[in-house]
Amino acid sequence: MAASQAHQLWIIEAIGLKLAASASHIDSPNASLTLGQRLYAALRESIQSGALAPGSQLPASRRLAAALGIGRNTVLGAVERLVAEGFLRAQPGSGVFVAEWQPPPPAPRGGSDVLPPLSARGTRILDFERTLSGRHSAFAPGVPALDRFPRERWQRLLRRHQQRAPTAWFDYQSQGGVSALREVLCDYLQLSRSVRCHPGQILITQGAQQGFELVARLLADVGDTLWMEEPGYGGAQSCFVSAGLALEPVPVDAEGMNVAALAADTPAPRLIYVTPSHQYPCGVTLPLSRRMALLALARHHRAWIIEDDYDSEFRYASAPIASLQGLIEEAPVIYVGTFSKVLYPGLRLGYLVLPEALVEPFRRANARLHREGQYLVQAALADFIGEGHFARHVAQMRECYRQRQAALREALAPAVARGLVLSAGQAGMHLVARLDTLDEERTLVEQAAAADILLSPLSQYYLRAPVQAGLVLGYAGATPAEIARAGGWLARRWLALHGAD
Amino acid sequence: MAASQAHQLWIIEAIGLKLAASASHIDSPNASLTLGQRLYAALRESIQSGALAPGSQLPASRRLAAALGIGRNTVLGAVERLVAEGFLRAQPGSGVFVAEWQPPPPAPRGGSDVLPPLSARGTRILDFERTLSGRHSAFAPGVPALDRFPRERWQRLLRRHQQRAPTAWFDYQSQGGVSALREVLCDYLQLSRSVRCHPGQILITQGAQQGFELVARLLADVGDTLWMEEPGYGGAQSCFVSAGLALEPVPVDAEGMNVAALAADTPAPRLIYVTPSHQYPCGVTLPLSRRMALLALARHHRAWIIEDDYDSEFRYASAPIASLQGLIEEAPVIYVGTFSKVLYPGLRLGYLVLPEALVEPFRRANARLHREGQYLVQAALADFIGEGHFARHVAQMRECYRQRQAALREALAPAVARGLVLSAGQAGMHLVARLDTLDEERTLVEQAAAADILLSPLSQYYLRAPVQAGLVLGYAGATPAEIARAGGWLARRWLALHGAD
Repeated sequence: MAASQAHQLWIIEAIGLKLAASASHIDSPNASLTLGQRLYAALRESIQSGALAPGSQLPASRRLAAALGIGRNTVLGAVERLVAEGFLRAQPGSGVFVAEWQPPPPAPRGGSDVLPPLSARGTRILDFERTLSGRHSAFAPGVPALDRFPRERWQRLLRRHQQRAPTAWFDYQSQGGVSALREVLCDYLQLSRSVRCHPGQILITQGAQQGFELVARLLADVGDTLWMEEPGYGGAQSCFVSAGLALEPVPVDAEGMNVAALAADTPAPRLIYVTPSHQYPCGVTLPLSRRMALLALARHHRAWIIEDDYDSEFRYASAPIASLQGLIEEAPVIYVGTFSKVLYPGLRLGYLVLPEALVEPFRRANARLHREGQYLVQAALADFIGEGHFARHVAQMRECYRQRQAALREALAPAVARGLVLSAGQAGMHLVARLDTLDEERTLVEQAAAADILLSPLSQYYLRAPVQAGLVLGYAGATPAEIARAGGWLARRWLALHGAD
Repeated sequence: MAASQAHQLWIIEAIGLKLAASASHIDSPNASLTLGQRLYAALRESIQSGALAPGSQLPASRRLAAALGIGRNTVLGAVERLVAEGFLRAQPGSGVFVAEWQPPPPAPRGGSDVLPPLSARGTRILDFERTLSGRHSAFAPGVPALDRFPRERWQRLLRRHQQRAPTAWFDYQSQGGVSALREVLCDYLQLSRSVRCHPGQILITQGAQQGFELVARLLADVGDTLWMEEPGYGGAQSCFVSAGLALEPVPVDAEGMNVAALAADTPAPRLIYVTPSHQYPCGVTLPLSRRMALLALARHHRAWIIEDDYDSEFRYASAPIASLQGLIEEAPVIYVGTFSKVLYPGLRLGYLVLPEALVEPFRRANARLHREGQYLVQAALADFIGEGHFARHVAQMRECYRQRQAALREALAPAVARGLVLSAGQAGMHLVARLDTLDEERTLVEQAAAADILLSPLSQYYLRAPVQAGLVLGYAGATPAEIARAGGWLARRWLALHGAD
């Protein structure tokens, strides 16, 4: 006991030295701490290092305070915190003791073995990150003309709702989204896409990705088959893989997804993912006959079709294409939309149009799995649409992208004249340039990176071999000058590779 | 041919009638459409109904315009759109024809058979929705005092960043969050929770739920075992179930998660979910010995611990508890935090503190699976923390919740005096009242709903039988007056049920 007491006093002295040291060194990480915080840290360190042995008694707070030359309340505060955390144990009537505890065995040495590895699906999900673009320049696919977004007006609407927002909007929500937004959105979808819906069928999500996640999990089980356009959209692919689905690639030809090309023994689908209005990334439109056949096939297999309508606003020459969802009554279709392209990606707002029977389950599951939010932003968006700013912005972007696509075609014209094949169409935010070989694709991608140009290789939009070589060229987010520079560079490089420099 | 021509003319006449009708009825859903839109709709309807037969030729646009008494450009616009959509087929030189297509077979009649059903996991996910609260009143668990949130100041910070935000913040992002936020958050976590980290280890997510999703998918495969506190947090449960994990309940006793109580043949965990600072919903703190044992166990099984630290700010009597993550070096721990409790749930911001080796994979997978966003809000939050408003708000809420808990204890005192058992602790945002039977629980929940009081049954926080009966009483989001009313009601009802009215 006497030895133990002596030991304790020695420890206290050491703690005193530590306190003094941490106070006097401005550079010390503890310099900004209060005295109580420093005492807490010093005591805790002594316990964790074993200097204050498990089971040993701490000197009384009064004595500790006197020995350290600090206030008793400071000591009490630190001790109380350590008691709450379990480092010390207060035994009423007899004092405060260092808790009995055993340190875990030291981590095994040797780099990667120290911590557990990624899961198999985690590794697979990371594979899809290759097709991710997040750069506001030529030729990042899917990035809109952010420099042309009406920020002033948008901010005014946000401010309006920041001031007005009911307290409930700060709370958890489970209504499926701000009703004013669902109403104007419903009008818009009926009119411009012939979607069959009423506002109650719309569920606002935090981006289309969240919509895909909900569909994959509420309508398919692990191991179920999903038919996916090949090549197709990486964001959707990664989401379906992460949901444990078996992805069955369906070839895309000049008329879009071609289910007739599937082998007879292809597993029947539980879900079918399709971009009928403007295939991603090839840009073709699924004709009526295939649409009807797809609906018939879905009904036959009791499968759901996921209709991803990500950029239909941007058809330069004619009105947007009508949706697959609205073609027939009670279509087995979930229509997925996003505001990332028409407004901006950082907004993180998208939506699902659900058949009546799925409205309640989806709303409830979304509230549980993801929680709803951004009601204030949703309200501002409702006004943005309702007051006509949305339609005006879309019309302006349509013209802007038409010009940017024309600029890209013009910049690439020298190569096109010598045989470079570009996708057709007066629509969208990107073009696809076909290449002969994967070698050529890789060479161009690498050289472009060195020239600060982002080329997205078409081969990476495929789930399986055989893949096709090419480049997905996003032009919407790049200025005409950037397009001219990067397009000119690409034309010259392509001509050089084809011996026509 | 002549017959067909006659038929076509008859159709055109019908279309003319439709156009006239839709124009003259203000109440018609088509009243706000332009003439071109109405013509498009009428033609499309005639094609879809079969009135305009597949393969038949459309009269020339000039003739159609004359017959309908409208401009030729209006006709051309509608025809072009229908060609783009595949309803019509333009054959250069010979004319425009109705596309060949087959309608899908009619949907089978009979209610639920028409559309495919929910998945098995979808049905299971919906089960967890029972524990979801979204009501700003007594006794919704997990809802903070939104009436006390400093909205003016917060709006000022949002406005500041709305004006300053770089264009890139409107774009897709994949940096892991605004760096200023990660820096102030890192300081805060080091100081108040003894978390071991540098700012690069922090990944900002759209709420803690998104953090759980990432962990479940990147660190576990379908069928892997996750040990879950029993009773435990429904949001996490639903998320892990939706990720296909096998949830193994670990009993919670007076010292929190008790792995020693597990049967010897319990499958080894790949993930362990724990709320060590303040068990949800029981409110107990995991002592040091169990923390160290849990770390040792995780190392032994090469499992990851998910430390959910959802409301540690609100310990009324002492400083917040230090994290499990910071107890040892290279701890196999993912620390999960949220701003839903300290600020407001509608904000949808949370974060992960990741071991160095997981930073890159998580950042990349998050950008791919969920996309990042709300950089502007993140920047405002960085200032909110950096300028001290956060610490002040937390301190005020701590005092507010202390008072509200005291108000609830006071309101329930008559029942407690007669044997009602309330959870101990001077912390958090809710208390748990134990009940004797599930019958009693159900009776009180139902009677409360009729009195517009939300009682959350404890039994629903369990994954499996045996469950315990009780009530989870959130007091943080309710005013003292609401607490007095609802608490008084509950005390009276409980006393009545126990024959002590």
